[in-house]
Amino acid sequence: MRLRILGHDNAKRKGRSLSGRTARRRVRRITLPDGGQPGSTAARADFLAGEEPLGIRVDGSALTVTMRTPGDDLELAAGFLVGEAVVRSRADIAEIKLCDGTSCGHVGHDDMGNIADVTLAAGITVAPGARRSFLTTSACGVCGKTSIQDICAVPHAALAGDPARFSPEMLATLPDRLRDAQRVFSRTGGLHAAGLFTAGGELIAAREDIGRHNAVDKVVGWALLAGRLPLAGRVLLVSGRASFELVQKAVLAGIPLLAAVSAPSSLAVDLAEEAGLTLVGFLRGPSMNVYTGAHRLSDARPG
Amino acid sequence: MRLRILGHDNAKRKGRSLSGRTARRRVRRITLPDGGQPGSTAARADFLAGEEPLGIRVDGSALTVTMRTPGDDLELAAGFLVGEAVVRSRADIAEIKLCDGTSCGHVGHDDMGNIADVTLAAGITVAPGARRSFLTTSACGVCGKTSIQDICAVPHAALAGDPARFSPEMLATLPDRLRDAQRVFSRTGGLHAAGLFTAGGELIAAREDIGRHNAVDKVVGWALLAGRLPLAGRVLLVSGRASFELVQKAVLAGIPLLAAVSAPSSLAVDLAEEAGLTLVGFLRGPSMNVYTGAHRLSDARPG
Repeated sequence: MRLRILGHDNAKRKGRSLSGRTARRRVRRITLPDGGQPGSTAARADFLAGEEPLGIRVDGSALTVTMRTPGDDLELAAGFLVGEAVVRSRADIAEIKLCDGTSCGHVGHDDMGNIADVTLAAGITVAPGARRSFLTTSACGVCGKTSIQDICAVPHAALAGDPARFSPEMLATLPDRLRDAQRVFSRTGGLHAAGLFTAGGELIAAREDIGRHNAVDKVVGWALLAGRLPLAGRVLLVSGRASFELVQKAVLAGIPLLAAVSAPSSLAVDLAEEAGLTLVGFLRGPSMNVYTGAHRLSDARPG
Repeated sequence: MRLRILGHDNAKRKGRSLSGRTARRRVRRITLPDGGQPGSTAARADFLAGEEPLGIRVDGSALTVTMRTPGDDLELAAGFLVGEAVVRSRADIAEIKLCDGTSCGHVGHDDMGNIADVTLAAGITVAPGARRSFLTTSACGVCGKTSIQDICAVPHAALAGDPARFSPEMLATLPDRLRDAQRVFSRTGGLHAAGLFTAGGELIAAREDIGRHNAVDKVVGWALLAGRLPLAGRVLLVSGRASFELVQKAVLAGIPLLAAVSAPSSLAVDLAEEAGLTLVGFLRGPSMNVYTGAHRLSDARPG
């Protein structure tokens, strides 16, 4: 027997917020006796990060399904297409909308609102090498070499020409600014955040999701739909680690500096180096590690 | 121009450890002046978590590519297939090996060691509804409904019959035991861990990866290859959050209790409830939250 995934109607019954960003569930809190303090067991309601599948359709065909925190779904779909090298500007998308229960031909459908429907502009197509599905289905039948190389559809030294410069002092202020912008995190403890900033440290956009890659897609998709790509001269900050995938997304969005609160992976560093991206990790308190593109940072003078 | 992903040969030149679990990269550490302390800038070498693509081939066809930390790759591939409901026991796999440069027909191939090659036993097939690729390519052409339902291939109340009981006192000891078992984390700060324990709190297996789902796949795949599935009466602890996907993997491996150091998502709780899994979150210090299946926990008596 297969489970039914909660659609909007079921979810509302189960204590989901209107936006779906958080959901309330019953929880039993157990605290053991500790250091002379007595233990306790108590039932209470807890706010959790919402997680639901979002299907992305392009030109009438299902492209992918991602598990995401509801909210900013069109931005997520648009940003996903940037990160897959399908679209590069607002003009590449003819129409983008959520399935409203009639446009998709299923009136009263449980998944309404969980399907983003994208129509590409004339001449824009999902090339095999740019499709995520390609990675899982169309790899070289012999040993997968093609698919592994196609993971990385990033132009060599794509960002080398971006003349932007950034100060470490400005970067050090960004984690607090991003946290201030997070409305959900304090309630659930379960969401990743991505923030887009000017070189002066001004927050332009912040988005959250249970998946770090989705939070970045939402920010990039917002910028695409606002006609702001490529994001030359901007800083992208992510609340967790910096993976290969996040570097790829930043490069494809034209962002010259990616900063992460935690560690990068080895492949993230290698791709950043090749693409000309400045990669900063462990951005915490007054210190940070610069892994690549240090020429974009003005020196921090001792004393 | 496309980048070449580092194969083993290139990676070694770039300071990768023999295992690939960690990699050394140059980093510029910037510390700003703070509270009377002078600032500093210093160059040093840093250990990062290794990240490379692993292609998984099944019966001669590429099934998926996952970004993972090298190590325990056959276990990762085997566990992935459990989580996709393709295999349920060791006998379902006729052969599993890494591409050695001849078996895949590409002598001297850069990706050698980054391809796991699985041959299923007679009668075992990758059903469309169980394939990850299905999610991204074969969804209902109208609105993706099929694919969204097929995300969740977990039997209803699958674990309800597991009579195991667990004490909160034992659970509280597990995070420290898992940390003790992590050899890499302290060096890189970038790896997720998953640990499998007996009901008495004894560690059976621990694995690490830059992706939390991969760490779980490695543990489950180890158990599969050792002929230990289903994992009745066991506890799975993950170092981060508990997503829908991790609950699904635990249920398909037959594990009755999933504990996470951080928060679960709403859908993780819903799926755990439906499948009869005991889900514990925020397992830190002397306290924990029990979201579902509390009947498996003996009461913590006050004081």
